[in-house]
Amino acid sequence: MKVSELGEFGLIERIRDELGAQDKAKTILGPRSKLLIGIGDDAALWQSTAAAHLATTDTLVAGVHFPRETASWVDLGWKALAANVSDIAAMGGTPEYALVTLALPDDFQVDDVLALYRGMMAAGREYGVVIAGGDMVRSVDVIITVALTGRATESQRGEPLALRRNAAHAGDFIAVSGSLGNAAGGLRLLLESRPCPPEASAFLRRAQLRPQPRVELGQALLRTGIRCAIDISDGLAQDLRHICEASGLGATVRVADIPISPHLSRTFPEDATAMAAGGGEDYELLFTGPAGVVDRVRGRFATPITVIGSLAEDPERRVRFVDENGREVSFATTGWDHFAGGAAR
Amino acid sequence: MKVSELGEFGLIERIRDELGAQDKAKTILGPRSKLLIGIGDDAALWQSTAAAHLATTDTLVAGVHFPRETASWVDLGWKALAANVSDIAAMGGTPEYALVTLALPDDFQVDDVLALYRGMMAAGREYGVVIAGGDMVRSVDVIITVALTGRATESQRGEPLALRRNAAHAGDFIAVSGSLGNAAGGLRLLLESRPCPPEASAFLRRAQLRPQPRVELGQALLRTGIRCAIDISDGLAQDLRHICEASGLGATVRVADIPISPHLSRTFPEDATAMAAGGGEDYELLFTGPAGVVDRVRGRFATPITVIGSLAEDPERRVRFVDENGREVSFATTGWDHFAGGAAR
Repeated sequence: MKVSELGEFGLIERIRDELGAQDKAKTILGPRSKLLIGIGDDAALWQSTAAAHLATTDTLVAGVHFPRETASWVDLGWKALAANVSDIAAMGGTPEYALVTLALPDDFQVDDVLALYRGMMAAGREYGVVIAGGDMVRSVDVIITVALTGRATESQRGEPLALRRNAAHAGDFIAVSGSLGNAAGGLRLLLESRPCPPEASAFLRRAQLRPQPRVELGQALLRTGIRCAIDISDGLAQDLRHICEASGLGATVRVADIPISPHLSRTFPEDATAMAAGGGEDYELLFTGPAGVVDRVRGRFATPITVIGSLAEDPERRVRFVDENGREVSFATTGWDHFAGGAAR
Repeated sequence: MKVSELGEFGLIERIRDELGAQDKAKTILGPRSKLLIGIGDDAALWQSTAAAHLATTDTLVAGVHFPRETASWVDLGWKALAANVSDIAAMGGTPEYALVTLALPDDFQVDDVLALYRGMMAAGREYGVVIAGGDMVRSVDVIITVALTGRATESQRGEPLALRRNAAHAGDFIAVSGSLGNAAGGLRLLLESRPCPPEASAFLRRAQLRPQPRVELGQALLRTGIRCAIDISDGLAQDLRHICEASGLGATVRVADIPISPHLSRTFPEDATAMAAGGGEDYELLFTGPAGVVDRVRGRFATPITVIGSLAEDPERRVRFVDENGREVSFATTGWDHFAGGAAR
């Protein structure tokens, strides 16, 4: 059935039924936050004992952020929510409530809307997020906008703490969690056929379709003394540039130290490094801090943490990738810019 | 200059400059809430002493919600924010922080983006809202999505209070603030030329282009003992239906009692009543309560409040409009449904 046949209010009714399964999820939020009013009123209402709050919003557009042929609507629902969860993770916070806006063509299928919601709810269960409201409008494109609130981590004295983009210092080490380029590799596998062992294919596709934001790591970084981080959504080069711009520093990254999974390097031996340097959507955390603090981080968590370079004074705020001889290396892929075009994200 | 020439990050830079003027607005938020991190990081961060929080989101699509020829981008910015402020008003809360997502075609003009922001900032100054973040994506349509947070009004014992759609009771009086149909009249004036005194024209166009949500009234209703309200965004008939559906009741509205401005009735003598009953976007409050409480409300506020009917048990949850002889009246315009089509909103 098309959404135009069911109508806006019929569709909202179906979504409310679907979201009934969330009731159990509310307990995930724990004792610090409680949803009092969800979908079906003029606004969502929740009680919270937090002293500081976070909010972010991120949008997926069919045909721009994802090719409609290669990802299921369930996957896209997951990803739309996960991209926002990752922004809260990059502040060191705890995600809580989502508002979902769908812009859809008249002939969009009701079943596909419900599949989108099922994907968002699956990510919600994983990350303790409850969908508390939203809006639906008619449009040419399929556009999924999620706004997500969260609560900030607090110091022992109750002061709000956050991982900032502008909190880097000259001399800081640059580190990343996990391995990079997997989501870019997964996208390539979805778009072109290529011989690939099933295990590698499953790993890379999953990185693209079901990204796993680093919520617990973000909170742990804050508690360990890290103050500067961003999530890698636009690609390492681009996101590191955001830190350099905000902090007024230059960065040098040793290409050989960028963590690359064996699955990626075996499947794309020629492009793995460029994918890791430029490919977006890995949703790993990129952070900086004094050598001693970064070392403490590395010793403390199960998540792999790799030091890939350092920051220095630089009025031009350059991001340089260098080889083992210190020579600058450049990549074709340099990140994502919505209006200037860019690599498939 | 087109947005594609400036690029996403250049555009964000221009918007940040534009929003610098907001710094003064932060003080509007008063002692209960303080923005710590705004645009330019992964998420916005604010401190708040509130125990309960509100969030809503509402979207305008060019060509669906507004004809691109008749409203300036400054007006549309105002309206996009005001529509969300009205949802917070309809819960009796205080609006605080906005996240703004713009979906724009490549050839959209940078100056028009800045004009949109100026309109939102003007509404923000009026209603104490600070724009704290957002997103920008490329699309065919021009789509403005605002997500707005707020804090809930609290009882003297510190418990969160909210105006609900499902809190009406059989026997309740139905009342509205202000006068209805002005925004629909203003839209008609923008779309067709019609002889009209300048004062009436200015009044009606302003109702359409610069709606004034009832934030203080919503809070005052809660304090006076009202518990059921909705804002009139889809039209009296449709929004009253939302209350009836949520509360499980039927409504009878006396058409002759619907408040209509002299400007509207003189400019559209034949259609004013239908516009008042079915036209959306007035952003007045529609509320219900026991006769005694509604009387108290009427005596206490400067805002005109008019009782237009009452609620009763009705398993079919009908909304009936009746004439002075109690005979049912029907209107051609019955509200707004996104996917089933509907009147121009």
